[in-house]
Amino acid sequence: MVWDAWGVAAAHTPLPERIRTLVAQVFSVSGESVARRDEAEVPLRESALTSALRAGLAAVVGADHISAGHRDRLLHAGGKSTPDLLRRRADGPQDAPDAVVFPADHEQVLAVLAYCAEHGVAVVPFGGGTSVVGGLDPVRGRFEAVIAVDLRRLDHVTEVDPVSATATLGAGLTGPQAEALLAEHGLSLGHFPQSFEFASIGGFAATRSSGQASAGYGRFDDMIMRLKVATPVGTLDLGRAPASAAGPDLRELFSGSEGTLGIITEVTLRVHPIPATTAYQAWSFPDFATGAEALRSVVQNGAAPTVLRLSDEAETGLNLARSGDIGGAPVTGCLAITTFEGTEAHVAARSAEASALLAAAGGAALGEQPAREWEHGRFAAPYLRDALLDVGVLCETLETATSWSNIARLKAAVTTTLTEALGAQGTPALVMCHISHTYPTGASLYFTVVAKQADDPVAQWAQAKRAVGDAIVAAGGTITHHHAVGADHRPWMTDEIGDLGARVLRAVKDAVDPAGILNPGKLIP
Amino acid sequence: MVWDAWGVAAAHTPLPERIRTLVAQVFSVSGESVARRDEAEVPLRESALTSALRAGLAAVVGADHISAGHRDRLLHAGGKSTPDLLRRRADGPQDAPDAVVFPADHEQVLAVLAYCAEHGVAVVPFGGGTSVVGGLDPVRGRFEAVIAVDLRRLDHVTEVDPVSATATLGAGLTGPQAEALLAEHGLSLGHFPQSFEFASIGGFAATRSSGQASAGYGRFDDMIMRLKVATPVGTLDLGRAPASAAGPDLRELFSGSEGTLGIITEVTLRVHPIPATTAYQAWSFPDFATGAEALRSVVQNGAAPTVLRLSDEAETGLNLARSGDIGGAPVTGCLAITTFEGTEAHVAARSAEASALLAAAGGAALGEQPAREWEHGRFAAPYLRDALLDVGVLCETLETATSWSNIARLKAAVTTTLTEALGAQGTPALVMCHISHTYPTGASLYFTVVAKQADDPVAQWAQAKRAVGDAIVAAGGTITHHHAVGADHRPWMTDEIGDLGARVLRAVKDAVDPAGILNPGKLIP
Repeated sequence: MVWDAWGVAAAHTPLPERIRTLVAQVFSVSGESVARRDEAEVPLRESALTSALRAGLAAVVGADHISAGHRDRLLHAGGKSTPDLLRRRADGPQDAPDAVVFPADHEQVLAVLAYCAEHGVAVVPFGGGTSVVGGLDPVRGRFEAVIAVDLRRLDHVTEVDPVSATATLGAGLTGPQAEALLAEHGLSLGHFPQSFEFASIGGFAATRSSGQASAGYGRFDDMIMRLKVATPVGTLDLGRAPASAAGPDLRELFSGSEGTLGIITEVTLRVHPIPATTAYQAWSFPDFATGAEALRSVVQNGAAPTVLRLSDEAETGLNLARSGDIGGAPVTGCLAITTFEGTEAHVAARSAEASALLAAAGGAALGEQPAREWEHGRFAAPYLRDALLDVGVLCETLETATSWSNIARLKAAVTTTLTEALGAQGTPALVMCHISHTYPTGASLYFTVVAKQADDPVAQWAQAKRAVGDAIVAAGGTITHHHAVGADHRPWMTDEIGDLGARVLRAVKDAVDPAGILNPGKLIP
Repeated sequence: MVWDAWGVAAAHTPLPERIRTLVAQVFSVSGESVARRDEAEVPLRESALTSALRAGLAAVVGADHISAGHRDRLLHAGGKSTPDLLRRRADGPQDAPDAVVFPADHEQVLAVLAYCAEHGVAVVPFGGGTSVVGGLDPVRGRFEAVIAVDLRRLDHVTEVDPVSATATLGAGLTGPQAEALLAEHGLSLGHFPQSFEFASIGGFAATRSSGQASAGYGRFDDMIMRLKVATPVGTLDLGRAPASAAGPDLRELFSGSEGTLGIITEVTLRVHPIPATTAYQAWSFPDFATGAEALRSVVQNGAAPTVLRLSDEAETGLNLARSGDIGGAPVTGCLAITTFEGTEAHVAARSAEASALLAAAGGAALGEQPAREWEHGRFAAPYLRDALLDVGVLCETLETATSWSNIARLKAAVTTTLTEALGAQGTPALVMCHISHTYPTGASLYFTVVAKQADDPVAQWAQAKRAVGDAIVAAGGTITHHHAVGADHRPWMTDEIGDLGARVLRAVKDAVDPAGILNPGKLIP
């Protein structure tokens, strides 16, 4: 990815004319894009890694696989949250890791961690670089220097077991790389978060990622059969069977550990045959509450679509504004998307069952086209955010989850808080929401907020984010459903797990990372 | 339950004549039942709890809720494994906790633990008393005395949320109590392990229980939304949403903690409406390998029965011997059971999909009756074990799980090892097996082994158990799929989680139970 925006440069496009006109009117911005800085000209904090430490690390990974070069450091400067991108577009010097190392395999990762623990160098594990919660901030903690450990060379499929429908994948494989390698065996992982094109297998595991097909294939943590983790004090190899009662499930300690307890180097995952067929069906609901009840009916009856999502009125309206209409016919109310994957017979039975439930709950069928269009554009939103940031519009997302009975309350609390927090700063906000992950007991809520950038947009958003984080906790939501904790959600971790839970996490941290080199300042309160 | 056998006395029956004749022939036993000891006459180790400690505990729970009486101590002497029952039927003094306390609520449990930590008294948390792995052994560890903390008074439903399909249940509720209370709201938990009639909600959570309807409703750990845990240093209240990316899932540390890290006092569980209908269908397969492939096809295609199980040839044959025939028609080969629960439409679609897959995989439909008979008798096997023990036959079960591609190898390894280990002692064994829990990536294997009791049947089984535990690990299985670890599987815990995993568990233990009072000698290597 480019250093100061999402994705690859070739995919960057200016704001569509229709949106440009709309945001210029609504948010009183010029609509003109600001030129971005030349990467080579960006002032960067000098590397704090001594030549002795650099030589020591080079001895572990090979001199060709460590870099303190300007470009490598910039490309590992952090993640892709809106504040990250705003900071990078701002003038002034940038921070970045003091060097980047590219270990070849698990043994080299182990050796890098042992070296850094011995010599007091902080380590930021780096997968696809897509964190939107500050999980990759180059924090030195109490150490002089910090390095990024980039896992891209751990890009192998170690084992494929088509009978058991499992595959063992290197942590550095990106989503598309993993799917391509599995496709050679007729298999698919089916994990498609919005970060899919760039994020890595290790990153998915370390952050409890959840993909757009979670209704069908589960969250990433559900898919994890076995985890191999390198820590400063040795290796963990966890997971012996599809299910076990042999004590606490330690995989669940390292899944979601966000590089603070070790570096995940290899993951054995549940996979499935590439589906024989996919059925698409879009629906319209008169309002969000009706649509949410319909989704609840589908998931509580086990009708098992592969994708099941619902946009609220505002998001449905914006999608209309982007494409003029959806699938050739204007959509009012709230748009819902379903897809079904599997054998012909399986798909036919499931889509019939789900369609009957959605229709009975007040849905009007819109046909295939809107669902196909959603799928076609599903990884594009972060590019649109960049184009909005370029014209002076603030655009950020946040997400939570709660029980079905609490969905309306939580949605209202978040919407009101964001509207008030940004409105009070003189920048009225448009807040949109969708449900994209459903469970028998509840669902996620994913919010997109758009407003005019204030003079200091990082401070502007920080203020809103503090308010909305508190509001989420007060309204009974989790601080994050799938974006993870990183640095940005750390203030609310004690709300999530309590003081004693935080002590438990610190006890585990002390056991596996006694020197405290792993990803300082993230996750653990 | 009675102290020296499974279940309630009213349900005890002598061995059916058909089985008595069979085992007398096969195992050269007399077939005559040995009289059991009068409970009041059993010599019991004197209580080691000082009167001061007893008074201190009485001050916490009330004088009416602590007992060092003979009968209360006997009834908390341990669990219900075959070695447990053999030891109780043997002459000589019995060990038991030095007293039993019955706290009223979470706060009293907290206070009991704080008191015991301060005064150095070991604690065995006690739910339904159904452990078959030594999880309830009254081990004192480095302390002078041990008490059982019986949770039966934590028997309330705190909250029911029919919209979100969740219910918050006290840890002391037994399976039938929980189902009865939920039925008042039209809801069901759907967790039916063989211990269902006696085991408790807290015990299910603490041991990662898995019920016979796991194909439909998941393992107990899948159902846990929220856990409240009392520890010697305070309370943990874990779980904020149906799914979260807020770091490691600490629920998964306390689920399966078997009373070594705290006492689970309250669990919020996913429930479901009492199903409108249940469909039953039994199948016959020519051999176990063909049947296992058929089950794999069903679960990997997401055909989603509620119950899905397969007996091997030996177990199918014994079931025949018990009932003469199954469902009116003799069954050869291997018997499989499926049930489907839900709405009429859901059940019709699912059973059609599963039936097509099972037939295509070589199954012959046997109709409803064998499946109904299986359901009718599904909690009876432990009573049969008692009747067998009474006539000098050794009968024990063990279980494991592995990937589909490893099922045949693991089954052969266990069968061969048990056959050889018992045969070498001059007591040839009959080893039966079934698959009762299936996953997309693999399945459980549950073994029942029957042989003539040797002169020292506890030592006889211990020798076989050591051999078979080693064989399971060597053949790539988990040491337990749903019986848990307790004292009996602890020798293999380091194989499951490695040295570093064991260090992680000990670090967590030190954080929440610094005095080490909680269930000494169990789980943690």
